[in-house]
Amino acid sequence: MVQKKYVYAFGDKNTEGTAEMKNLLGGKGANLGEMASLGIQVPPGFTISTEACIYYFQNKNTFPSKLWDEILTRLKDLEKVLGKKFGNASDPLLVSVRSGARVSMPGMMDTVLNLGLNDLTVRGLAKSTKNEWFALDSYRRFISMFGNVVLGISAERFEAILTKKKLKRKIEFDTEFTIQELKGLIRQFKALVARVTGEEFLEDPIQQLRTAVEAVFNSWNTERARTYRRLNDIPHNWGTAVTVQSMVFGNMGDTSATGVAFTRNPATGEKKFYGEYMLNAQGEDVVAGIRTPNSIELLEQDMPEVYQDLVKVYQKLENHYKDMQDLEFTIENQKLFLLQTRSGKRTASSAIKVAIDMVNEGLISKREALMRVPANQLDQIFHPMISPKAKIKLLGKGLGASPGAAVGKVVFTPERAQEMAEKKEKVILVRMETSPEDIHGMSVSQGILTAKGGMTSHAAVVARAMGKPCVSGVSTLDVNVKRKKCMLNGFQLKEMDSITIDGTTGKLIEGAVPLIQSRLTSNFTRMMTWAGEVRALQIRANADTPHDALMARDFGAQGIGLCRTEHMFFDEERIFLVRKMIVAEDGKVRDEALKKLLPIQRGDFIEIFKVMDGLPVTLRLLDPPLHEFLPNSPAEIKNLAKEMKTSPISLRKKIETIKEVNPMLGHRGCRLGITFPDIYRMQVRAIVEAACRQVKKGVKVFPEIMVPLVADVNEFKIVRELIVEVAEDAITKSGVDLNYKIGTMIELPRAAMTAGDIAKEADFFSFGTNDLTQTAFGLSRDDSGSFLNEYLDKGLLTRDPFVSLDQQGVGQLISIAAEKGKKVKPNIHLGVCGEHGGDPASINFFNTLGLDYVSCSPYRVPTAILAAAQAVIQEDS
Amino acid sequence: MVQKKYVYAFGDKNTEGTAEMKNLLGGKGANLGEMASLGIQVPPGFTISTEACIYYFQNKNTFPSKLWDEILTRLKDLEKVLGKKFGNASDPLLVSVRSGARVSMPGMMDTVLNLGLNDLTVRGLAKSTKNEWFALDSYRRFISMFGNVVLGISAERFEAILTKKKLKRKIEFDTEFTIQELKGLIRQFKALVARVTGEEFLEDPIQQLRTAVEAVFNSWNTERARTYRRLNDIPHNWGTAVTVQSMVFGNMGDTSATGVAFTRNPATGEKKFYGEYMLNAQGEDVVAGIRTPNSIELLEQDMPEVYQDLVKVYQKLENHYKDMQDLEFTIENQKLFLLQTRSGKRTASSAIKVAIDMVNEGLISKREALMRVPANQLDQIFHPMISPKAKIKLLGKGLGASPGAAVGKVVFTPERAQEMAEKKEKVILVRMETSPEDIHGMSVSQGILTAKGGMTSHAAVVARAMGKPCVSGVSTLDVNVKRKKCMLNGFQLKEMDSITIDGTTGKLIEGAVPLIQSRLTSNFTRMMTWAGEVRALQIRANADTPHDALMARDFGAQGIGLCRTEHMFFDEERIFLVRKMIVAEDGKVRDEALKKLLPIQRGDFIEIFKVMDGLPVTLRLLDPPLHEFLPNSPAEIKNLAKEMKTSPISLRKKIETIKEVNPMLGHRGCRLGITFPDIYRMQVRAIVEAACRQVKKGVKVFPEIMVPLVADVNEFKIVRELIVEVAEDAITKSGVDLNYKIGTMIELPRAAMTAGDIAKEADFFSFGTNDLTQTAFGLSRDDSGSFLNEYLDKGLLTRDPFVSLDQQGVGQLISIAAEKGKKVKPNIHLGVCGEHGGDPASINFFNTLGLDYVSCSPYRVPTAILAAAQAVIQEDS
Repeated sequence: MVQKKYVYAFGDKNTEGTAEMKNLLGGKGANLGEMASLGIQVPPGFTISTEACIYYFQNKNTFPSKLWDEILTRLKDLEKVLGKKFGNASDPLLVSVRSGARVSMPGMMDTVLNLGLNDLTVRGLAKSTKNEWFALDSYRRFISMFGNVVLGISAERFEAILTKKKLKRKIEFDTEFTIQELKGLIRQFKALVARVTGEEFLEDPIQQLRTAVEAVFNSWNTERARTYRRLNDIPHNWGTAVTVQSMVFGNMGDTSATGVAFTRNPATGEKKFYGEYMLNAQGEDVVAGIRTPNSIELLEQDMPEVYQDLVKVYQKLENHYKDMQDLEFTIENQKLFLLQTRSGKRTASSAIKVAIDMVNEGLISKREALMRVPANQLDQIFHPMISPKAKIKLLGKGLGASPGAAVGKVVFTPERAQEMAEKKEKVILVRMETSPEDIHGMSVSQGILTAKGGMTSHAAVVARAMGKPCVSGVSTLDVNVKRKKCMLNGFQLKEMDSITIDGTTGKLIEGAVPLIQSRLTSNFTRMMTWAGEVRALQIRANADTPHDALMARDFGAQGIGLCRTEHMFFDEERIFLVRKMIVAEDGKVRDEALKKLLPIQRGDFIEIFKVMDGLPVTLRLLDPPLHEFLPNSPAEIKNLAKEMKTSPISLRKKIETIKEVNPMLGHRGCRLGITFPDIYRMQVRAIVEAACRQVKKGVKVFPEIMVPLVADVNEFKIVRELIVEVAEDAITKSGVDLNYKIGTMIELPRAAMTAGDIAKEADFFSFGTNDLTQTAFGLSRDDSGSFLNEYLDKGLLTRDPFVSLDQQGVGQLISIAAEKGKKVKPNIHLGVCGEHGGDPASINFFNTLGLDYVSCSPYRVPTAILAAAQAVIQEDS
Repeated sequence: MVQKKYVYAFGDKNTEGTAEMKNLLGGKGANLGEMASLGIQVPPGFTISTEACIYYFQNKNTFPSKLWDEILTRLKDLEKVLGKKFGNASDPLLVSVRSGARVSMPGMMDTVLNLGLNDLTVRGLAKSTKNEWFALDSYRRFISMFGNVVLGISAERFEAILTKKKLKRKIEFDTEFTIQELKGLIRQFKALVARVTGEEFLEDPIQQLRTAVEAVFNSWNTERARTYRRLNDIPHNWGTAVTVQSMVFGNMGDTSATGVAFTRNPATGEKKFYGEYMLNAQGEDVVAGIRTPNSIELLEQDMPEVYQDLVKVYQKLENHYKDMQDLEFTIENQKLFLLQTRSGKRTASSAIKVAIDMVNEGLISKREALMRVPANQLDQIFHPMISPKAKIKLLGKGLGASPGAAVGKVVFTPERAQEMAEKKEKVILVRMETSPEDIHGMSVSQGILTAKGGMTSHAAVVARAMGKPCVSGVSTLDVNVKRKKCMLNGFQLKEMDSITIDGTTGKLIEGAVPLIQSRLTSNFTRMMTWAGEVRALQIRANADTPHDALMARDFGAQGIGLCRTEHMFFDEERIFLVRKMIVAEDGKVRDEALKKLLPIQRGDFIEIFKVMDGLPVTLRLLDPPLHEFLPNSPAEIKNLAKEMKTSPISLRKKIETIKEVNPMLGHRGCRLGITFPDIYRMQVRAIVEAACRQVKKGVKVFPEIMVPLVADVNEFKIVRELIVEVAEDAITKSGVDLNYKIGTMIELPRAAMTAGDIAKEADFFSFGTNDLTQTAFGLSRDDSGSFLNEYLDKGLLTRDPFVSLDQQGVGQLISIAAEKGKKVKPNIHLGVCGEHGGDPASINFFNTLGLDYVSCSPYRVPTAILAAAQAVIQEDS
C-alpha cells in the first residue's frame, strides 16, 4: 500500500500544489502552489493537508503516524533550498504558520510569523541580516503572536506593555523603539507568558512548530469558528490545512514593506488596482491599524520598479484566474514576494459589474460570468444591507423572515411604536409574537423582531407584505412588556436601546449599524437577461397581494406559484368577519360572515389577476388551522363575544376547543375544506368570479386552484368536485370562457408515496417543501430553535433543512413523487412553492429532477433566475 | 361489448349464484343460490347485484340503464316458474325484498314481505288460498312494513293503532283479530300513510317493487348504516345487493310457522341444534318478540316430519359449508322452505370450541380451524366484556386505550373516587385528562374515561399498567368538575350516574350493562399451540413493568419489543425527581436528581430482566417531550418551586419555555439524548448495571437498547457512542460478560428514506408505526378526533390508520426502509412496536414484508400469535 501523503511543497522547482487542490490544501496553500508554477515569486514552504486535520479530529487529537516525519523531511528540503537552518544560531531559517481552509474563514487562528526565533537564533538573525534592531523587532512580534494565537493569551495584554512603554518614552510608533527597549520588551513579553501559562516561553524551534501546527488544527473547532461556519453554512467536516512558509521581511527598514490589494474595486467593481501598503512593517500592522497605510498608488513613487513588478503580477494573476484577485505581498529589500492570492470578496453589485466587464474584455464567456455572481446574495441589491465595513456585535440569530436590514430603537408595544413614530423616531417593534391587533404598530416600525413563530407566522407574513425587515423565531428572546425590557441571548435590552436587525440573514446586532442601499443597474438587467436565456426552470413568485405580485412581475417572475388566500384574512377589517365565521355555532351566522367575505376576497383576486395579465396564478385554498385566526387577549375576546352576543367565558371555551395539541398536524388544509366546505366554496367562488370579470375586460387569466395538505387521493377528489361544481356555476353565470386548473400540494410523505394515485386526478403538483421537511424529519420549525442550532454546531446536520432542502431524505420523497406522478400523467406540471424555491442549492437539485418551476418570495426571484441558470451550466459541465 | 349483467336468478333450475359470489350478490343472495344448487328447497327469486348499487350511488341515485328491464324480465321468469302473475287480481305473485351486503349489517333496511299486495290482489290472494283472514293479515303487515322501512314512517305509529285495537277488543294476540277488524286496520294504516306522506298508499305493484329496490339501495347510506360500518371497519364502497324472492307464508294457520336456528350453540360452541320458531307467523314476529317463540326441540312434536326435514337440511348445510350455520326458515302448510343461511356469529370462546370440535369431527383441518377464530376478538377472552345479549345505548366513542369493559358510577375527581370506593361503590373516573396526581383515584376506579390524550397518554399508560379498562380521547366529552357533571356527545351525565365503558372498542354506553367474563380453556391453549406451529413472525409484547412482562410471557410473548423506560417516571414518588431534573437551571441540581433516579430505574430493570429470563428485552430510551412530565396545577407548581427553592412565578416561566407549539414534532426522542446526554447516560447505566447483576445470578439477559426518533444516521451515531461508552464502563466494573444490541426506531419518513445509511450503524430496526403514521399523514392522533370520524363516515379512509396500518402509504415507507436496511445488512433484525403490532390486518401485512417480529400490548399477544398464523395460511393459499 502506498503511504498516504499529507504534506505538499511549493515555491521551489518541486511545487506540488495547484489551484485545483483547494479541498486538500486550503485556498491559501493551493494558490501558493499555483503562483509558484506561474513563475511568480513566493517564499517557498509546504502545506499540511486538510486530510491530516480531519484525521487529527477523528483520532482524539493525534497526528497521523507519519505526519511529523513528513513535516521534518519537508523542513530539511526547505533548509536546502534556502541555505539556512531551522534553529541555527548563525543564520536561522524562520517560518510563518498559517491556517487555510477551503474558504477563508474569520474566527480561526490566522498567522504566526517569525517562528523559529529564540534567545539564540535572534542573535543569528541579527548577524546574518546585519540588522539587530530588525531581529529584535521580529522576536518581540513573534513572542506576542505565538503567545496570543497559539497559547491563547489576550493580545491586549501584550499591547498594554507596548503602550505603557510608548507613553513613558513619549513616542508614537513601534519603529521608534531603541534596541535596548526592544530587549526590555522581549523580557517583559516572556515574563507575561511564563506568568499566564506557568511555563517558560518555548525556546525549542521544533517544539514551537509542532505546537503551532496543533494550534491551527484546534482553532478549527473553537466556538467562534463553529459559530461562523454555522452562520455561513460551511460544513464542520472540511477541516483546515496548515501552511508553513519561509519568512520574508517587510520590516527590514524603508526598503521593505507589506501590503494587500485587489485587482479591481471590490465594493463597486470598477476596473482599477486598489489596495494599501505600509513601509517597514509586517503583515499584522496593516490589519491592526496602528499606523495608517498608504494607498497603493503611492508605491509607484516609493519604489517605482517594485510597483511595476506588482502591476505585472496582478495582471498576470487576473488573466490566469480570470477573476478579480485579492493579494497579500511583502517587499523585502526592494524585492517583491507574493504571500497569498485568492478570489476577491465583493458585493453583489460589484460581482455583476466585474463579471460583465470581463465578458467585454474577452476574459470569460457569458456562462462563466453567470457563475461568478453569488446567486444567494443577489437580493442584497434590493434591500438596505449592513455595510460590509461595519464592525458588528452579534446579539443572536433568528429566522430571516422578511429580507433587508433595519436600524431603530426598541419598543415593546404597538402603541409605543406609534407614539415614537409621531416623534419621528425610528423604532423596531419587539414582541413575543404579533397578532392582527399589532398591525398599526408594525406599519410605523422600521422592522419587526419576534421570539415565536416561523416563516409563515403572522409577523413574517405581514412584514413581507409591508416590505419591512423581520426576524422571527428568536428562541432566546424573552420580552417583559411591563418592565419595558427584554432579554436576548443573555443580553438585556431596554426600551429605546438601539438595535440593528437583518431580516435577510436573521442576525441581530447591537446598536445602530450603518446600512447601505445599492441601486438596480443596467448591468443587473443584462445579467438577468443572460440568465433567462440559459435556465430551464421557470421562476414564479409567492405573492399574496397585488403589491407583491407587481414587484414579482417586475423582477421577472413568470407567474404566481403560491397565493396564500388566507393571508388576506389578517387585514384588520376582515379578521373580525373571519373570527365570526370560525366560532359561529350556528350555520346562519357562518353563512352571513362568509357572504360578507366573498366580495372582499373577490376584490383581492381581481387586482392580482390584473397585475398578472397573461401569466398563471396559483391560488391555495385556506390552509392554516383555524385557531390561528382567533383572538388571544381578554380584550379581543370580550369584543368578539359582544359582537357574537355570547359571553366571553363561553367564547373562550369555544376557542379552547379549537386549539390543538399539534396544530401543524391537526385540523387544517383540505381537512378544513372537507369538514367546512362552505369556506372553500366561498374562496373558489371569489377566485372564479374575479377571473371571469377580468376575462370580460380582456385580461388573460390563468387561475390554478391548489388544494393544500392532501394525504390521500380521496380528499383531493372530494375537494376537486366541490371546486368544479362552484366554478362551473360561476362561469355559467358570468357567460365567459375560463380555463382553470385544479392541482394539489405534495407536502406530506404519504402524498409523495401515493403520488401516482393523486396524479390521476390532479392537473399539477406543487411541492410544499416546508411542510414536507417538517413531516419527513418529524421536526416542527416553530420548536426546532431549542436544538437545531446545537445540531448544526455539532455537525449533525450540515445545513438547516428549512433553509436548504435536505436532498437525501426530503429530496428523495420529491423525486419518488415526481417519478410516480409522471408515470401516470407524463405532462403533469410540477413545481415547488416552499421557501426552498429561493435557495440556490435547492434550485440546483430541483433542476436536476426536471421540475417545471420553482416559486419564491418576490425579492428572491432574481436569485432564483440566476440560480436556475447556474444549475443548467453546472449540469452541462 | 357484452352488456353488464346486474340480476342473478336462484331457486329454479336456472340458479346463477353460488356461495363464492358474496361480493357481487351479498351474503344472502349468494347463499340462496348455493342452497338451491344443493337441492335445498328455497322460494325462487333473483338478486340485484352490489354493482348496481355502486353504480346507483356513483351516478346521482340513478339505475344503470338496462337494470329495470332486467328486473322486469326476471320477474316474468319468476311468474312462469310459479304459474302466478305479479299484480294479478285472481292469483297474485307476491315477493319479499331484502337487502344483503357482503356481511350482515344491522342498521340497514331489512325486509319488506308480501310486496305486490293492493286492494285488488289481496282479494285474489284470499281466493287462491281460500283463506281471507290470511290474505288480510298479510296485507296489513305489508302496509306497515312498506310504510315503515320504505316510506320511513315510525313502526311505533302502526303498532299504536294495533295496540289500541287490541285493548279495545281485550285480546292479546294479533291472531285473534277478526276479518272485519283486519279490514279496519288496513284502512287505518293506509290513512296513516296518506297523512304522513301526503300521498295515497302506492297501489301499483310494479311501482312498489321499484320503490322498494331504491329504498334498499338508499338504506346503505343512512346515518345508522354508516356509523355501523365505521365502528366495524366495513368499507363504504361495498354497496348492498337486493334480493327479490317469491313469498312463502308462515302465517297460513297452525300448519305454518317461521323460525331461526343455529347448527351449534353460538354462545358456548356446544354441538347441539339450537333455535326457535313460531306457529302461524311471519318472520318479523319472531324478532319483534310479540309472542314468545318456542324452542326448536318442540317442533319435533308439532310437525315431526318437517322437523326431520329441517335436521337433514341443517346437517347438509353444516357439512357443506363446514362451519356453524345460522338459518332462517318458513313452513308453509307443512312444507319447509329455507330463506337464508349464513355463517353463525359467535363469541371468541365458542369460535375456538367449534373449530376444535370440527377438526376432531374430521370436517376441517387444523389450518382451517385457525382461520375460523376471529383473531381480533381473541382478547375478549381475558377481559370482562359487554354481554352480546345486552341492549345498549351508545353515548359516544373514543380510543380503546386499555382493554376490557367496566361498569360504575361517574365521579370527576380522584378524591371523590376514593371516598366512594371506601363506601364500596364501583366508580368510573371521568377526567378531561389525568396526571400523576390522579393515580390514587385511578387505582380505586373500575375504569377511566378521558376527553384528551391518545393511546400513550398518561391515562392510557397507567390504566394498561393497572390492567384497568380505559377509554381516552373522547373529543365530545366536556367535564365540569365544579358543577359535578359532564356533557358527552350532547348527553348530560351527573356525578353518580351509571355508565359502562368498553376499553377494547372505545365505546361508551348509558347505564350499567351486564358484563360477562370468559375463562381460559384447554381449547384455547390448544389453538395457541397450533398457531405457534404455523406462524413465521415472532411475537413480543410492549411492557413497561414487571407485572406486564409476566403477563405477556404467560400469554406466549417471546420477548419484550418495547419497554418505555420513561413510563416508570410517572410513579408518584419518582415524578418529583424527574421534574427536578427537567427544570434544573443548574447542572448540580440535575446531577443530584439523576443520581437518585439511577437506582430506581435500575431496580425496575432488574425485575423485568428476571421475569424475561432467556428472552430479549428492547428498552427504549427517553422519548416524550419533557414538558409532559411537568406539573400543571398551581398547587403542584408551588410544591415543586418550594423544593427547588425558587418562586412559583419563575418556575411557571421555566415551564412555559419548555412548552412547544407542536410537541409531537419537537424536542423529544434522541434529540433529548443529544442535548441532555446525562439523562440517556443515567438510563443506559441503569439498564446495563441491572443486566450485569442478573447475569451474575445466572439469569440469561438479552438487552436491546433502542434509540427513538432518529431522523439522520448522525444522531444515531452520537447516541450509539454514548451508549457504548457508558455500557462498556458498567460492564467492565461489574466484571461479567454481557451481550447487548443497539438499534433504532424507524418512525420518521426521513429515517425510512435513509434507512440504508442507518442500517450501517444499527443492530436492529423497530418500526414505530404510531409516529410513522402521524408524520406520513401529517396527522396528530391527539387532534384527529375533530375530523377523522367524518373522514371514516364519508369513506375517505376505509379504516382508522392508527388502528390498522395504512399499507398503501405508511406500509410503503416501511417496505422501502426494510429493503434498504436488508440491502446493507442482510441479517438486520426487523420488528414493529407500534399499536399496529396487535392488529390482525397489519400483522398480515408485516408477515408479507418478511419482518422478524411484532410487539403488542400483553393482552393482544394471543391475537397477534393467531393473526401471524393466519397470515402464513393466507399467504400459502
